[in-house]
Amino acid sequence: MKLDRVEDLKNRINEFCNERDWKKFHNPKDMAISIAIEAAELLEEFQWKDKREIEKKIKKEKHRIEEELADIYIYLLELSDMLAIDLIEAAKKKIEKNRLKYPVDKARGNAKKYTEL
Amino acid sequence: MKLDRVEDLKNRINEFCNERDWKKFHNPKDMAISIAIEAAELLEEFQWKDKREIEKKIKKEKHRIEEELADIYIYLLELSDMLAIDLIEAAKKKIEKNRLKYPVDKARGNAKKYTEL
Amino acid sequence: MKLDRVEDLKNRINEFCNERDWKKFHNPKDMAISIAIEAAELLEEFQWKDKREIEKKIKKEKHRIEEELADIYIYLLELSDMLAIDLIEAAKKKIEKNRLKYPVDKARGNAKKYTEL
Amino acid sequence: MKLDRVEDLKNRINEFCNERDWKKFHNPKDMAISIAIEAAELLEEFQWKDKREIEKKIKKEKHRIEEELADIYIYLLELSDMLAIDLIEAAKKKIEKNRLKYPVDKARGNAKKYTEL
Repeated sequence: MKLDRVEDLKNRINEFCNERDWKKFHNPKDMAISIAIEAAELLEEFQWKDKREIEKKIKKEKHRIEEELADIYIYLLELSDMLAIDLIEAAKKKIEKNRLKYPVDKARGNAKKYTEL
Repeated sequence: MKLDRVEDLKNRINEFCNERDWKKFHNPKDMAISIAIEAAELLEEFQWKDKREIEKKIKKEKHRIEEELADIYIYLLELSDMLAIDLIEAAKKKIEKNRLKYPVDKARGNAKKYTEL
Repeated sequence: MKLDRVEDLKNRINEFCNERDWKKFHNPKDMAISIAIEAAELLEEFQWKDKREIEKKIKKEKHRIEEELADIYIYLLELSDMLAIDLIEAAKKKIEKNRLKYPVDKARGNAKKYTEL
Repeated sequence: MKLDRVEDLKNRINEFCNERDWKKFHNPKDMAISIAIEAAELLEEFQWKDKREIEKKIKKEKHRIEEELADIYIYLLELSDMLAIDLIEAAKKKIEKNRLKYPVDKARGNAKKYTEL
């Protein structure tokens, strides 16, 4: 039977960390710090750039953005695993919650936060 | 045929955004900003807390952490989709790259950055 | 003799924290986390907004931006104080370093990082 | 008459930016992004480190932390200047507001957010 793609990825992350004996450093607070650091590195790719320059960057250096997204995702999967959270289920639940927080008739076409709707 | 779980989630996110006509706000720079904001909200769950207090929080308020992880994941999927990046493939590639950056014999058991190895 | 304005501010921050017995929570790592959280809150003020909308926001809700800047500055002063760092001297030194990193003839009129100059 | 230390610093920052013709890139949104990126770099200094290791780092590599604090402060001053905000006055106001948000009798000795007091 073919392994689920996410499960396969999780196995690879696990193997990578175990080989380096890095699990001992992993704790929720530092994992959250890591996600924030990687998110800032992603942001750096777009810093000082307008729409046109970003389109150019995406054409020429998509691999850089790709790597930053990958870094965030890897930490996200590791932290979820550590806390026995199923990221996909969590996301589905959050979308259902957002459906109530942002009703179509009020949220349609505007980017206001739910507290300002 | 059963739809892949990630594909199913992406469909739900798409539907949610389309119903609200939110796609027009979505651009890579603001999506990256959103990921950074959500990452900070995750961090806030652990702020001022030591190891013992974090364990307590995970027991009592895991749903809060779960929601923050979900928020980051949703934006991550949206941004990847917008840029035609396969997050799982990108993560696999990054792990292979990290294998070279952090060779087992040098990285084993220490948390130094590759530039300091 | 009139007290230096920054010194006066530091005294007020100190008094505020001492009255609440909050110094015991203060440690460099959590202070750095706090700065990152406040920086994300500042970012949230500009999220999804284009140039024109930001100008409007600055006119109508400058006090919100002002408060976020204040929060970052307060934590910055506290952390500097804790580490016996003179923020003004540190900034002066950094500008001198940046003068060498970004020589006028190479950096003039472009926003590239020094590693790409 | 001796120039105020903060004013002197602001003049130096101004001169530095003007020499490089960098003012044209400066807009509130990208300045806020810059602060978030620098805050993450500060965070990186403490990532994966426990209390003892951080004390060691502060002894041995305080200049690294000093530089990150300086970077945040420089962007903070630039953004404040651009918006005609007096950072010291803003911080004083915010402390007064926090006095009401966190009354001594309720906030004393606990690190809870005001929404949970």
